[in-house]
Amino acid sequence: MINAVLDHIKSRETESLARMKAFLRIPSISTDPDRKEDVRKAAHWVLELFNGCGIQAELVETPGHPAVLADTGPAKGDGPTILVYGHYDVQPVGERSLWRTEPFDPTEVDGAIFARGSADDKGQVITHMLAAEAWKKAAGGLPIRVKFLIEGEEEIGSPNLRTVIESRKDALKCDYVVLSDTSKLNWDIPAITYGTKGLIYKQIDITGPKQDLHSGAFGGTVTNPGNALARIIASMHDSKNRVAIPGFYDTVRALPDAERKALAALPYSEADYLKMVGSPSLHGEDGYTTNERRWVRPTVDVNGVFGGFMAEGQSTIIPKQVGAKVSMRLVPDQDPETLGRLFDEHVQRVAPPGVNVKVRTLASAGPYVCPLDLPGLVAAKAAIQDGYGKPPVLMREGGTLPILPMFKKLLGAESIMIGFSVPDCNLHGPNEFFHIDDFYKGIRTCAWLVHHLAKPR
Amino acid sequence: MINAVLDHIKSRETESLARMKAFLRIPSISTDPDRKEDVRKAAHWVLELFNGCGIQAELVETPGHPAVLADTGPAKGDGPTILVYGHYDVQPVGERSLWRTEPFDPTEVDGAIFARGSADDKGQVITHMLAAEAWKKAAGGLPIRVKFLIEGEEEIGSPNLRTVIESRKDALKCDYVVLSDTSKLNWDIPAITYGTKGLIYKQIDITGPKQDLHSGAFGGTVTNPGNALARIIASMHDSKNRVAIPGFYDTVRALPDAERKALAALPYSEADYLKMVGSPSLHGEDGYTTNERRWVRPTVDVNGVFGGFMAEGQSTIIPKQVGAKVSMRLVPDQDPETLGRLFDEHVQRVAPPGVNVKVRTLASAGPYVCPLDLPGLVAAKAAIQDGYGKPPVLMREGGTLPILPMFKKLLGAESIMIGFSVPDCNLHGPNEFFHIDDFYKGIRTCAWLVHHLAKPR
Repeated sequence: MINAVLDHIKSRETESLARMKAFLRIPSISTDPDRKEDVRKAAHWVLELFNGCGIQAELVETPGHPAVLADTGPAKGDGPTILVYGHYDVQPVGERSLWRTEPFDPTEVDGAIFARGSADDKGQVITHMLAAEAWKKAAGGLPIRVKFLIEGEEEIGSPNLRTVIESRKDALKCDYVVLSDTSKLNWDIPAITYGTKGLIYKQIDITGPKQDLHSGAFGGTVTNPGNALARIIASMHDSKNRVAIPGFYDTVRALPDAERKALAALPYSEADYLKMVGSPSLHGEDGYTTNERRWVRPTVDVNGVFGGFMAEGQSTIIPKQVGAKVSMRLVPDQDPETLGRLFDEHVQRVAPPGVNVKVRTLASAGPYVCPLDLPGLVAAKAAIQDGYGKPPVLMREGGTLPILPMFKKLLGAESIMIGFSVPDCNLHGPNEFFHIDDFYKGIRTCAWLVHHLAKPR
Repeated sequence: MINAVLDHIKSRETESLARMKAFLRIPSISTDPDRKEDVRKAAHWVLELFNGCGIQAELVETPGHPAVLADTGPAKGDGPTILVYGHYDVQPVGERSLWRTEPFDPTEVDGAIFARGSADDKGQVITHMLAAEAWKKAAGGLPIRVKFLIEGEEEIGSPNLRTVIESRKDALKCDYVVLSDTSKLNWDIPAITYGTKGLIYKQIDITGPKQDLHSGAFGGTVTNPGNALARIIASMHDSKNRVAIPGFYDTVRALPDAERKALAALPYSEADYLKMVGSPSLHGEDGYTTNERRWVRPTVDVNGVFGGFMAEGQSTIIPKQVGAKVSMRLVPDQDPETLGRLFDEHVQRVAPPGVNVKVRTLASAGPYVCPLDLPGLVAAKAAIQDGYGKPPVLMREGGTLPILPMFKKLLGAESIMIGFSVPDCNLHGPNEFFHIDDFYKGIRTCAWLVHHLAKPR
């Protein structure tokens, strides 16, 4: 069966590329109110692709943009049911002049398609849709049940996703969630991402005097909110770059030796990494490698500071107010609520007298790690091996996907992340692209995934 | 002789007030290019007042606004020569809607004149001009030689003053500089300000990665410029709020017991002060009073911080760059150049690896303290006693007047600061005012000053 499916995929590559481009031509920018109809148009485009090959699909309306639900229906055998999650909405274009091609006119350059959404996530999610279609058309059906949840609000924080899932819990029931919204390790090496960090985003606002004061007339008599902010932020790390918030590491899971060795075995060049970030040198928590620091160790970072006189030149004031955005990335088993509280308590404890310090939580999401012995993950590895002709590496991700712990909690399902784009595909930036070769290999990998899940090795 | 002068002043009060108002009607905003002609008009107004009573005066042109030089000429006896310094330019109006009266239509409200420049400095410097005129007209001349240097660029940092002084050094030769550009201690208590702090204004710019990085993807692997900035600023004070820059206090002159006692004897209400600043509580360097902290102890203050994501909401970045404005107020004998160097060295020493830290100097000026046993100061005390009917207190000022060390250096003359305005006269803000009673008492005090300098007690 799989051979017929692969033949079908092979024979339709040109057509598949044309269809992906048509999808990319719809400017479905979810954050732009003027694009509301285009967003809906993209949802309908997804809907029609499913309907066109006999996969039952429907729009689920929300107060914002609709989600598309699809279902290939009960399958023969007792293979698992998977839920493919993806999104059809895209990021804004940003500064138009930085694009070398039209963001919504997909353009082939050096074997890649340049367009907004090509990597994130239209070009990646359509691989699963086209693989399911191939199974339908070439094999008459799928050996496992595949459901799809393709939302239109991922780029604005999925505000209605929880409600959609809760209201359609039975319809979305599955053994694994599968998503292609991550990347390979690099241009050559396919990967499965098995862990993401959690995120707590805080804003610290410090107020002192009732108005900006003359720093000469009043200096030395009142607590300067700027000095207070520095003291608070500086107190968050010790001299070994470990986070110094009491209790911060209490629940952090020690990395198993096997996993540590596997991470150490990944190809890594400090010179390349340094070139990518452009810092004078690399640093971080004592006793860990760069990849461990990025992927498996929790962090605290300043995202921004502001307040007082910020323009060119000089103004001699004691600012009445300053603030900072500070975020933490969490790892298992750091509970966002507990860690948020530890952060708040620490800030208040180290705050000097003479100022008022307020801490607000702007975002909070948990980390996610997929068990490495999950049968679905084993099948995904085999699928990539067959789709790419080489085995994937297993890696983690320092970023946060709040939907993963949400799926785990609401559907009881682990998530499997197979990404076909490259790390420097400019997602969210100008000149986003997706390799055509990865697109074709992605479709084949998705077809193989269905095959291997039905017949796990 | 002094009685005839005082009678003359008394009989001309209404006329003097009208003349002061005429002076205030000229919108001589030195920073506003559109007001260039008005600034010159104010210079000519000053010139004509001198010429009108037979005091030789001239305009000294500069690349900017002109200065007015005047000289009453050699006097009988061997009394000292004084140089009255003041400025005829004014600050911009600022937000017009905050003014309750027209800024350039002097308006009497509750015994005060409300107008831009009424306290800073037109209304104050004209007291000396009118006193000299009274001596000329009522006594036929002055018992000491009085020179005037009234510039038009004080509110833009006196960019050409040094050149004016250097080019007219002989003409400006004097024993004391006298200026009325400060205030009384409060509404009831006249004062002589005998010390000002120096100022060093620094900008710290910290760069790390070549662009803003995703705090999830890269967090923990590079030094975050925001965390680095906090560490640097926090390192500038210890837990007792003393400045922790090595060498910072090395040359600070210990306050003589007598001076400390005198400052302690000044009327002071912590409740009033706290109400004025509006902070939750007062704090500062351990072991010193609020007035000592304001006036005689050096300080380091953050004036502003900026960088990274500063808008509403959240953006999870490691900022590529952050910065801060930090200033120091210096006291005798802190040398601005040495202290600036100590600051720079400290910043580089505590800066963590992985970032580039640059420090720029935006301003640098020395402190000034007038010897308390200066004969001119003794005469000034007597003049205020006679002009106000009560003795002045001696106080210092936390702000900086770069002209004072400049006069000391270029002319070898100490400066005597007698101010007639009140501390909350809104100078530089909306609704600036000067009490009419202080205006009249000010003229009398200036007349008495000439008298007492000629016959020092």
